[in-house]
Amino acid sequence: METKADTNIKAPTGTGLQCKGWHQEAAMRMLMNNLDPDVAEKPEELIVYGGGGKAARNWESYHKIVETLQRLENDETLLVQSGKPVGVFQTHEEAPRVLIANAHLVPKWANWDEFRRLDKMGLTMYGQMTAGSWIYIGTQGILQGTYETFAECARQQFGGTLQGRLLVTAGLGGMGGAQPLAATMNGAACIGVEVDETRIDRRVETGYCDIKCKSLDEALEKALDAKEKGEALSIGLLGNVAEVLPQMLQKGVIPDVLTDQTSAHDLQLGYIPAGYTLDEANEKRESDPEGYQEDVLDSMVTHVETMLKMQQKGAVTFDYGNNLRGQVADHRDMEEAFNFPGFVPAFIRPLFCRGSGPFRWAALSGKPEDIYTTDKAVLETFPEKEALARWIKKAQDQVHFQGLPARICWLEYGERAEMGEKFNWLVKKGKVDAPLVIGRDHLDTGSVASPNRETEDMKDGSDAIADWPLLNAMLNTASGASWVSLHHGGGVGIGYSIHAGMVCVADGTEMADRRLKRVLTNDPGSGVMRHADAGYEEAVKTAKERGIDLPMVE
Amino acid sequence: METKADTNIKAPTGTGLQCKGWHQEAAMRMLMNNLDPDVAEKPEELIVYGGGGKAARNWESYHKIVETLQRLENDETLLVQSGKPVGVFQTHEEAPRVLIANAHLVPKWANWDEFRRLDKMGLTMYGQMTAGSWIYIGTQGILQGTYETFAECARQQFGGTLQGRLLVTAGLGGMGGAQPLAATMNGAACIGVEVDETRIDRRVETGYCDIKCKSLDEALEKALDAKEKGEALSIGLLGNVAEVLPQMLQKGVIPDVLTDQTSAHDLQLGYIPAGYTLDEANEKRESDPEGYQEDVLDSMVTHVETMLKMQQKGAVTFDYGNNLRGQVADHRDMEEAFNFPGFVPAFIRPLFCRGSGPFRWAALSGKPEDIYTTDKAVLETFPEKEALARWIKKAQDQVHFQGLPARICWLEYGERAEMGEKFNWLVKKGKVDAPLVIGRDHLDTGSVASPNRETEDMKDGSDAIADWPLLNAMLNTASGASWVSLHHGGGVGIGYSIHAGMVCVADGTEMADRRLKRVLTNDPGSGVMRHADAGYEEAVKTAKERGIDLPMVE
Ligand SMILES: NC(=O)c1ccc[n+]([C@@H]2O[C@H](COP(=O)([O-])OP(=O)(O)OC[C@H]3O[C@@H](n4cnc5c(N)ncnc54)[C@H](O)[C@@H]3O)[C@@H](O)[C@H]2O)c1
Ligand SMILES: NC(=O)c1ccc[n+]([C@@H]2O[C@H](COP(=O)([O-])OP(=O)(O)OC[C@H]3O[C@@H](n4cnc5c(N)ncnc54)[C@H](O)[C@@H]3O)[C@@H](O)[C@H]2O)c1
Repeated sequence: METKADTNIKAPTGTGLQCKGWHQEAAMRMLMNNLDPDVAEKPEELIVYGGGGKAARNWESYHKIVETLQRLENDETLLVQSGKPVGVFQTHEEAPRVLIANAHLVPKWANWDEFRRLDKMGLTMYGQMTAGSWIYIGTQGILQGTYETFAECARQQFGGTLQGRLLVTAGLGGMGGAQPLAATMNGAACIGVEVDETRIDRRVETGYCDIKCKSLDEALEKALDAKEKGEALSIGLLGNVAEVLPQMLQKGVIPDVLTDQTSAHDLQLGYIPAGYTLDEANEKRESDPEGYQEDVLDSMVTHVETMLKMQQKGAVTFDYGNNLRGQVADHRDMEEAFNFPGFVPAFIRPLFCRGSGPFRWAALSGKPEDIYTTDKAVLETFPEKEALARWIKKAQDQVHFQGLPARICWLEYGERAEMGEKFNWLVKKGKVDAPLVIGRDHLDTGSVASPNRETEDMKDGSDAIADWPLLNAMLNTASGASWVSLHHGGGVGIGYSIHAGMVCVADGTEMADRRLKRVLTNDPGSGVMRHADAGYEEAVKTAKERGIDLPMVE
Repeated sequence: METKADTNIKAPTGTGLQCKGWHQEAAMRMLMNNLDPDVAEKPEELIVYGGGGKAARNWESYHKIVETLQRLENDETLLVQSGKPVGVFQTHEEAPRVLIANAHLVPKWANWDEFRRLDKMGLTMYGQMTAGSWIYIGTQGILQGTYETFAECARQQFGGTLQGRLLVTAGLGGMGGAQPLAATMNGAACIGVEVDETRIDRRVETGYCDIKCKSLDEALEKALDAKEKGEALSIGLLGNVAEVLPQMLQKGVIPDVLTDQTSAHDLQLGYIPAGYTLDEANEKRESDPEGYQEDVLDSMVTHVETMLKMQQKGAVTFDYGNNLRGQVADHRDMEEAFNFPGFVPAFIRPLFCRGSGPFRWAALSGKPEDIYTTDKAVLETFPEKEALARWIKKAQDQVHFQGLPARICWLEYGERAEMGEKFNWLVKKGKVDAPLVIGRDHLDTGSVASPNRETEDMKDGSDAIADWPLLNAMLNTASGASWVSLHHGGGVGIGYSIHAGMVCVADGTEMADRRLKRVLTNDPGSGVMRHADAGYEEAVKTAKERGIDLPMVE
């Protein structure tokens, strides 16, 4: 069974086909792209991103998937069970070429222990979201998600921009490091408190953060000056947020926007307590883990208390998916932590209600120019969308492509189908050199049930109802996406989420026109449906305005 | 929200259409048929069978489903979320007209308490298997399942028939009452021990059991005489199995086949302890439930000990899905109970490995003659299948149709598609008066993950892997079934199973030919695939012989 790791995978580019059609070819190239060393975190272990999120179960499975895609006819469908190619069946031309189910367990057995046991036995695979469904495009997705969250905050609270606003956060790690750049892209003055100087240096080097400061006074002076002048500026402030934030409050500085992306979800490794150097933290964690954890929680209590006080004084305050609120609520009975909302109910759900979500695409030509052509098409199609235009321009300047050139931006119901049609036209007319693949994250409007994140605090209490992502996957299958995937446990872990993905190829044909129109209409449409069913007025309104047919919604 | 119960639902029959196509019409008629008072257990509560298995969430949803099916175009698809019609989307003509997801919860929340809470809030519905997927056909299914289990036992152990064999079981209740008839249909002499005389009387009245006996000696005399002569005979023996079985052993009578269908899964209501009258049991259960339970367990220990002894003396012994083994193992540390197998690993799995499963169909004409015509077609198509022929003939004699006339029989991979084609030809040629609908139970080869029943003790340990039913549902969607459903919790309850259903209409058209061929090939094909992947040689052999394309199976 042992086949050697292939650590130098590069997706083929251009118009030469190794498969019998573009849908199969696209699936093959995107699988390979997920494992490109420029894209994947640990390609030698088939890990793409997100802890252990894999693209294929093992090397034997990887090679067999590629081989099978290369021989797959245009009326056949390949089934992939947790990263292993298990069957080929005759379907029809407008059906998906690949159907994927990853990491599903019968609920009673759906926990990490059982999953790991079965994983060791070689029977399953953790697919995260876009890893196992072959549509990861590198860190651009993280940056854009953060950008979109801040942009929605700006739209809701500050008339569409963070210009002239002070945004304060903490944690400049793997995910959190995107915050300073996402903030300045939205026009803000930003202070990101980070206890580990090497992290700040890395963000400054790679252009994600403008400058480093070592004192609060200096940082405040610069940030408030930028805020005053309406200039975008990001500052990595060396310090511990549990100390710095109370000092800021004492000085009477109240941020306009306040959040946090320390790794609060992990009480041992994620959050450095006040008064500790990194070395001291490492030592105490070893010698006295329980005492250490109490110190962590003491600091978190101070941190959350300060956030609540700043919130009362007007700061727009939210939890950024790191479970900071849950930790102090569960371990210190500090239920009032939930007085500030999670980022999904606060900023993302209103987008979901309009069928908005993370539309992404990649150029199978391998040419960056093709993405610039599509960028232009997006800007021309939606000239009125300012935040979108700002994003595309900033992304062109500041995002380095990893693997196949790709782009991501949030589009609403209606807009996605419109863009899909345009992209197919670009391919047909030869404006781009090869077909485009269009997909999305599973964190989207109709495709996820995840009570601790995407479906936290639904209006009707339906957080844990998991019918919706299954309907989404079946609907995308019926609509003729190129490949469709159903996953368990992405984002928040085994037991905590069920979610679906889809990818659809624009190869310039009329058939692609039909399929793209159906998929890119129905996929976000199922999200508007899910939110209208839960009673969100914005979703009901969207459904009515756009003519989405929801039998039980009056 | 309150709409009145409709307690007199009858599916329309004949060739007049209330919908815009036969697929929608069939879905509407089969939904109505599920709620026909001749079919459903509690139609006023929308409950079809199996505890609380419902066909629609509430009356408002029911009427709206009917209304929506009536207006649904031939390129549209209706989505049903736990019995509620939530959206209509444009797909294409060869896609399913209805996609259903029932009772799914994110695994961490997938337990009865949370389910009931959400059910009370009106957010979900328990769909059992064929209740919420609109293809229940009355008790014929139970009888046939039992018949097929005994037939497989006969094939494995006794050269294909139970003629000249003694089969002993207990419990002649709702499910268990099918045992005597299923046994005689297979040629056996059968003793069914039942503690409640009214139950025996009901089975004798309805022809499910031949005679009642009140003494073991009389029953043994008659049964052994019938066995001797090779005559089929079923006897309902009044008595408590925990007393009767040891007596039988003492007398040196060892059954050829031994099982049990008392309601052992329920320690309070399901199993009467030795020495108790029914009234005494009712009293003690009220006055001293804990003491009562100990008495129940004492009797179960005696019962299982006797079964084990008889097994050692040659009786083919198996658990019939009532958790009798689990009870004494969990509560009395009697692990050796698992020395006899469950019925699925023992008899059903070999069938699954050949892609065999419960193929069923109904006549939309409403005419019994149409079913007799299809019966004839089945017999003509498979003249060599003796147990099948015996079943069809016995069913014609002894099964009363409930609602739309229907039939069920187990067919293998290959046979199902062949039969589908024939049925479509019968419709096309006017040999039957109206289209036929073809579906199946979710208890089938490729469509269920249920570690306590259908996937108990899989060869590779993959009992809890739930990717398979999801792939099955997506594949049937891609193949163009008329409707496809994905359920949680059927059979064994919330948390314990994930399973999928499909129904496909034979309306005599060429399109139906294509769709039936794909669906009735791929659906059982996915079951052969699942079992071949788990390492069953019979499945690998079937795949090779039939040319099923399994990339990783050499
Ligand atoms: N919003 C989302 O969609 C989303 C998605 C995934 C993860 N998350 C969560 O966001 C959090 C951050 O993720 P990451 O990948 O950036 O983690 P990471 O571990 O790479 O970075 C955390 C950073 O916080 C710093 N830090 C820890 N304690 C501190 C303190 N007291 N003061 C100042 N800085 C401190 C660490 O030095 C580190 O640089 C995690 O909890 C993660 O689960 C959110
Ligand atoms: N094999 C399958 O596919 C399958 C499917 C569903 C259910 N089951 C299980 O089969 C069992 C029977 O189901 P049912 O619907 O017939 O239940 P039921 O409750 O209607 O019938 C059980 C019968 O057993 C009798 N009984 C109880 N204790 C007895 C004793 N000590 N001696 C003799 N008779 C006794 C009762 O009087 C009753 O008539 C249940 O545990 C059920 O969960 C099996």
